[in-house]
Amino acid sequence: MNAEAARVHDHAEGADLERAMRAIGAEAKKAAAALALAAPEAKTGALRAAAAAVRANAEAIGEANLQDLAVGRERQLTPALMDRLELTPARIEAMAKGLDEVADLPDPVGKILASWTRPNGLEIARVSVPLGVIGVIYERRPNVTADAGGLCLKSGNAAILRGGSESFHSSGAILGCLQAGLAAADLPAKAVQLVPTTDRAAVGILLRMSEFVDVIVPRGGRGLIERVQAESRVPVFAHLDGLCHTYIDRSADPDMARRVTVNAKMRRTGICGATETLLVDRPAAETHLQPILDELIAQGCELRGDTAVQALDPRVAAAVPADWDTEYLAPILSIKLVEGIGEAIDHINAHGSHHTEAIIAEDGAAVTRFLSEVDAGIVMHNASTQFADGGEFGMGAEIGISTGKMHARGPVGAEQLTSYKYVVRGQGQARP
Amino acid sequence: MNAEAARVHDHAEGADLERAMRAIGAEAKKAAAALALAAPEAKTGALRAAAAAVRANAEAIGEANLQDLAVGRERQLTPALMDRLELTPARIEAMAKGLDEVADLPDPVGKILASWTRPNGLEIARVSVPLGVIGVIYERRPNVTADAGGLCLKSGNAAILRGGSESFHSSGAILGCLQAGLAAADLPAKAVQLVPTTDRAAVGILLRMSEFVDVIVPRGGRGLIERVQAESRVPVFAHLDGLCHTYIDRSADPDMARRVTVNAKMRRTGICGATETLLVDRPAAETHLQPILDELIAQGCELRGDTAVQALDPRVAAAVPADWDTEYLAPILSIKLVEGIGEAIDHINAHGSHHTEAIIAEDGAAVTRFLSEVDAGIVMHNASTQFADGGEFGMGAEIGISTGKMHARGPVGAEQLTSYKYVVRGQGQARP
Repeated sequence: MNAEAARVHDHAEGADLERAMRAIGAEAKKAAAALALAAPEAKTGALRAAAAAVRANAEAIGEANLQDLAVGRERQLTPALMDRLELTPARIEAMAKGLDEVADLPDPVGKILASWTRPNGLEIARVSVPLGVIGVIYERRPNVTADAGGLCLKSGNAAILRGGSESFHSSGAILGCLQAGLAAADLPAKAVQLVPTTDRAAVGILLRMSEFVDVIVPRGGRGLIERVQAESRVPVFAHLDGLCHTYIDRSADPDMARRVTVNAKMRRTGICGATETLLVDRPAAETHLQPILDELIAQGCELRGDTAVQALDPRVAAAVPADWDTEYLAPILSIKLVEGIGEAIDHINAHGSHHTEAIIAEDGAAVTRFLSEVDAGIVMHNASTQFADGGEFGMGAEIGISTGKMHARGPVGAEQLTSYKYVVRGQGQARP
Repeated sequence: MNAEAARVHDHAEGADLERAMRAIGAEAKKAAAALALAAPEAKTGALRAAAAAVRANAEAIGEANLQDLAVGRERQLTPALMDRLELTPARIEAMAKGLDEVADLPDPVGKILASWTRPNGLEIARVSVPLGVIGVIYERRPNVTADAGGLCLKSGNAAILRGGSESFHSSGAILGCLQAGLAAADLPAKAVQLVPTTDRAAVGILLRMSEFVDVIVPRGGRGLIERVQAESRVPVFAHLDGLCHTYIDRSADPDMARRVTVNAKMRRTGICGATETLLVDRPAAETHLQPILDELIAQGCELRGDTAVQALDPRVAAAVPADWDTEYLAPILSIKLVEGIGEAIDHINAHGSHHTEAIIAEDGAAVTRFLSEVDAGIVMHNASTQFADGGEFGMGAEIGISTGKMHARGPVGAEQLTSYKYVVRGQGQARP
């Protein structure tokens, strides 16, 4: 941390903080202009050098992380939160590997998305360009520093990172590696910056700096996302809930339905792509649902069903209306029998969060109807909702998943961090 | 106007208006769900039927317009504003023709924008879908009712139109034709609605109805756009300024530079794509600029230049700093000599509004540099900035031009009124 940053950190007051944040914004905007024009090889080189720096500095990163873990213990964080904060040697290597993978992605800038020629000879192309400056606000996981910083760099965007106060030292150590990578590739080190204060007021300032920031990506719990969506004067890529459904149609293969549903619920229950509500076509109740209930109970999942599901299996507790609107993020599943695909779609469009919705079915007409009528960023056929992930989509990494319909829906990877401009080539045309 | 609407119109009070607006929002959302699934042929049929209805009701539309013109005279509108309000038989036919042209566009919904297969067999496609409900807020020009309504219909979106109070009767008559078209194609008539009150508070409610409205398009003067951008809780497609530049490089063909520049300034001075500032590479001052000054003066254009331009021609007035940041929308041009393309790009990125910027040049390296380094929705080579228009881009029509970088930059036509969702097809994959 340099002298100015330390001053901000120690004595942050309103006006000082505002000034310091605006200085960061101005630096980011300047760096963004340079990064937007960087050759693909320069960006790739910076990412590889950053990965090498993470490996070379693994020990220092680990020591910085010990400082953060000590703060976390002082604050009596739960074991789950302490786990998110911790950087093991394996996790540090995973960060380096992630940066190498992002380096390997095709460059998303300067792609010709469409092109055509007008009758008057004007040649028009739609060409991808970076968004500009991206503000990333996250909570405890320090590895977001590397993931988000790497994706912004790949997509030619400058990043202003604002990590949680508990991961302050770890994030700073990782930032050093990213900036070393940028410097090694002769790119501006200020293309990735970390807000050098744990003052919460800094977030408010970041959300209002529309002069310098083009998009905000909040990564964290519901409280953070709600605050960002309410306060931001800058467009936001985010999702508030991942209330995902799996629907089992009467035409489903029973064994596939069991394998996929159990995975969709239980593989990791705390991620946004985990299935929270299972909808089952009534004719499939005994044939398809019963084996799923058995396996879920064997794996320790709590089941809450409507009266029809309870009638099928007394081990199922009664669901209350709030269950259909709850993202458990835990080994709990709500289950409802529906009268065919129409009721399933209506239920999903009424209670879902437009994130990820899946149908298990062999009937092509049912599949087509589900995929077209369900309004969500990701709709799936015969696959686990847990695949809702930029890495699983082949994007290398993701900076988040967006449920907004404006620009970038679903996993937001490097390509989704770009916009476009129209390039028009003429031969002297004047408009009649 | 039905009984409920008339009540709202006459006695609009806070709570009543809020309730009426929310009812419109709910109807729009319901209609949007149906329209999103409408067959391309149904939407085409509705547009053709609407065009036919405009032709069949040309007289009634003209009479409604007379009522509006009478109100306009009472309010002592300027001749220019009265002209915007007036619907001549030719303008009514142009609206019908516009609807037919939008009908002819390829359907923008359900297009596969990208598709790939993962190593585990998952097939992923990015498929275009409508945005949902689009709120369009405009001022005097009643033909926006047909243009905006038609584009929303084509793109599978429901529209809530809020025309200016002066065009209230004309817009209502045109709305009737659009709704007749929808009904003729068995699509929900409420897919296009007009806010049935001239109460300005209705705009504020519309801007806050993020539950029902997915995007807002303001069409009008700076005051309207500023209000919408400040108040809206819904994403906005808009541009505040069209401060467009034309840069003449030393390598430009002098005759082309003259023809294109005069057109860019003078064809229509009041549109957002009109050039407001001319930048001339110093070596081209005498050869290229002098003939342009002569022709612009002959056409009645007021010229304001820096000292170097004034030295070249005493008929040029002195530009003040504010001139470089002014969108005249009038026959006035500011002119500056620059030391090469670098200074031109710096000036444009500092003073432009990211709308449309043009270079006149024959040197390929200069062209490439300009097109890549200028940060604007549209960058042009050897063509008039007045081509910045959805119709001229071959989009049939436009609902506006966006200078935001998030989703839909440049002319916003039917295709730009869509988002996408990912469609994932599996064979039973569970995530490891």
